Amino acid sequence: MTDLPADGLMPFHAMEILKRAKVLEASGRSICHLEVGEPGSPPAPKVLEAVRQALPQAQGYTNAKGLGELREGLVAYYQNQHDVVVDADVIVCTMGSSAGFILAFHTAFRPGARIAITRPGYPAYVNTLLGLGFGITEIPLSVSNGWRLTGADIAAAHAEQPFEGLLFASPANPTGAAIDRAGLADIIATCERLGITMISDEIYHGLDYRGPSVSALELTKKAIIINSFSKYYCMTGWRIGWMVLPEMLVRRAEILQQNLFISAPTLSQIAATVALGERDYAEEQKAGYANNRLALDDGLRALGFDVGGASDGAFYAYVGISKFSNDSMAFCEAMLEEAGVAMTPGIDFDRVNGQGYVRLSYAGKSETIALALERMSGFLR
Amino acid sequence: MTDLPADGLMPFHAMEILKRAKVLEASGRSICHLEVGEPGSPPAPKVLEAVRQALPQAQGYTNAKGLGELREGLVAYYQNQHDVVVDADVIVCTMGSSAGFILAFHTAFRPGARIAITRPGYPAYVNTLLGLGFGITEIPLSVSNGWRLTGADIAAAHAEQPFEGLLFASPANPTGAAIDRAGLADIIATCERLGITMISDEIYHGLDYRGPSVSALELTKKAIIINSFSKYYCMTGWRIGWMVLPEMLVRRAEILQQNLFISAPTLSQIAATVALGERDYAEEQKAGYANNRLALDDGLRALGFDVGGASDGAFYAYVGISKFSNDSMAFCEAMLEEAGVAMTPGIDFDRVNGQGYVRLSYAGKSETIALALERMSGFLR
Repeated sequence: MTDLPADGLMPFHAMEILKRAKVLEASGRSICHLEVGEPGSPPAPKVLEAVRQALPQAQGYTNAKGLGELREGLVAYYQNQHDVVVDADVIVCTMGSSAGFILAFHTAFRPGARIAITRPGYPAYVNTLLGLGFGITEIPLSVSNGWRLTGADIAAAHAEQPFEGLLFASPANPTGAAIDRAGLADIIATCERLGITMISDEIYHGLDYRGPSVSALELTKKAIIINSFSKYYCMTGWRIGWMVLPEMLVRRAEILQQNLFISAPTLSQIAATVALGERDYAEEQKAGYANNRLALDDGLRALGFDVGGASDGAFYAYVGISKFSNDSMAFCEAMLEEAGVAMTPGIDFDRVNGQGYVRLSYAGKSETIALALERMSGFLR
Repeated sequence: MTDLPADGLMPFHAMEILKRAKVLEASGRSICHLEVGEPGSPPAPKVLEAVRQALPQAQGYTNAKGLGELREGLVAYYQNQHDVVVDADVIVCTMGSSAGFILAFHTAFRPGARIAITRPGYPAYVNTLLGLGFGITEIPLSVSNGWRLTGADIAAAHAEQPFEGLLFASPANPTGAAIDRAGLADIIATCERLGITMISDEIYHGLDYRGPSVSALELTKKAIIINSFSKYYCMTGWRIGWMVLPEMLVRRAEILQQNLFISAPTLSQIAATVALGERDYAEEQKAGYANNRLALDDGLRALGFDVGGASDGAFYAYVGISKFSNDSMAFCEAMLEEAGVAMTPGIDFDRVNGQGYVRLSYAGKSETIALALERMSGFLR
């Protein structure tokens, strides 16, 4: 786990931990999985039934943008959840948000362009941008500001070294920090003033514990929106997401999708169409995360972790380990090998200050959280 | 369908035709689909049954390289079909061959590197390379040589303008041309002599009508192999493929996969694992294509199309239309609108000489081929 290819690419340590955890499980060990951001439940029963019904037919490619029913469903979603009118033609269904990022970068920017991201932030942002040959600027966030990005942060970073694009998430990974309407308006105004193209990663929308998340679409038509069925709808392994594009970028995104990906998985598109109507099921899952969130924070605090305020959204606790270690990867490896608890080292999210942090996902079952806390307690004693 | 973004990106016309065909169908028209390379059958019954069994469980991410069972299945596939020993560790399961190409390019080359492809060739090669910021060299193939690539072709193009990589398919799209063992050895030797990294697209392996396809793995461990379950196993919309990498490139490919894609769709990986054992079903489908192949060639020849030798593999006829038109897109549009037969214009595959060609897929049902020939006959009269 030590190699570092020349262009700054780093492994996604959460996936490394997952791989090692699966090896341990295959050898008979019991592992509490708090390392990957994955709901423990399958999609809603009606979603599975729709897939069962569709299985006997040949599942060919769909058109590149995705099934009309799915995109119409997303139009209704924006109307109902955000009171925003979106044209189905500006929606492209993607192979998870992962493919959405690749499409967004190559749709909005020339190869080699510089794009700003937050630190801490989702590790695939850095690695995908560097892997595809783009430049990055990291905008440091501060725990004292609840890890929230501001227009002033953006302007300060831009004054030091200009960038063409900004990619950020709210609620965010790994911190769970959410930006409110005024904060989002400030970010959007700053980007417009400085000529920065904004990519709003809204993958954790719906998983918000202090009121509904604000979509950038409520405030601007100039941003690229990335979203996914993975988190709120419990569909990680289905690899299905979507993007909403400014009208002038749609055609290029569609052509790139045709060539780079052809179309998103067809059964997953069918499943996603039904999932949009199953928000009651999604809310039940969320109620479980909300309970886990408080139990995990309390437990971690009692064990001596440095726990700030409870997260606004998503399903992660990003907590300090200064009492135990100044090497987050070594801490996570020992915790996995000795206590059977898998968590993600902070260096995944912050190459500068991440050695002092770990991220724990509370998307699993409450029993898993309780067992993990008990095992951690034994290990840390 | 006329816009051409500044960096040379072109729409994938087959997908444009498919989109228009679906609009016509939605309005009640009957369309014969000969435009997209898609089997008309679903995957084998046991494949669907395995998916049904898996549905109730949460389908989370797999490890980045893919399920162990699937990669072990692919090891057995190479042993049985090609008498080659491959280590499961050098196999990465991908979201179709599409994601495999993106991974291959960014694993083996620096951004902006020049990669050679054949003309005619699969249109996504050109568009993906240009869209991702790579340079291209087109190596022209000749109908007089059965559209087959040779070492001499590669050396001649390289002498004119050097390139770092070569990507080609055998059997090829759109021509169906397959390269035999001696031809492949010649290509490999030429690439090794000139320091060219070779990517062998083997997506049409299995669909070979003049004896088994030769994998580059039988002759070298230095090439990147791309393959997919889409064609032989009837799984286009499932978006599942794989790549085999030279050992020194595996780690970088894995890191890119973790970050760019996380993992291939889980249900599709489960399905693919079972599909590998269902070759009898796949061979039944292939017997249908083999019949279609001869019927379509005979019918097209009788109608006045310029039909060369029957294709070696895949499921396409790439035929001249000089008797009817010198504008392949206009010809295909008229054929779709007036005769209800969807086919792909040659300009998708060859921007220089493609105006004189169209590609017809014979992967569908024999009745579809017969009806399409009848409709074409009426239209051309």
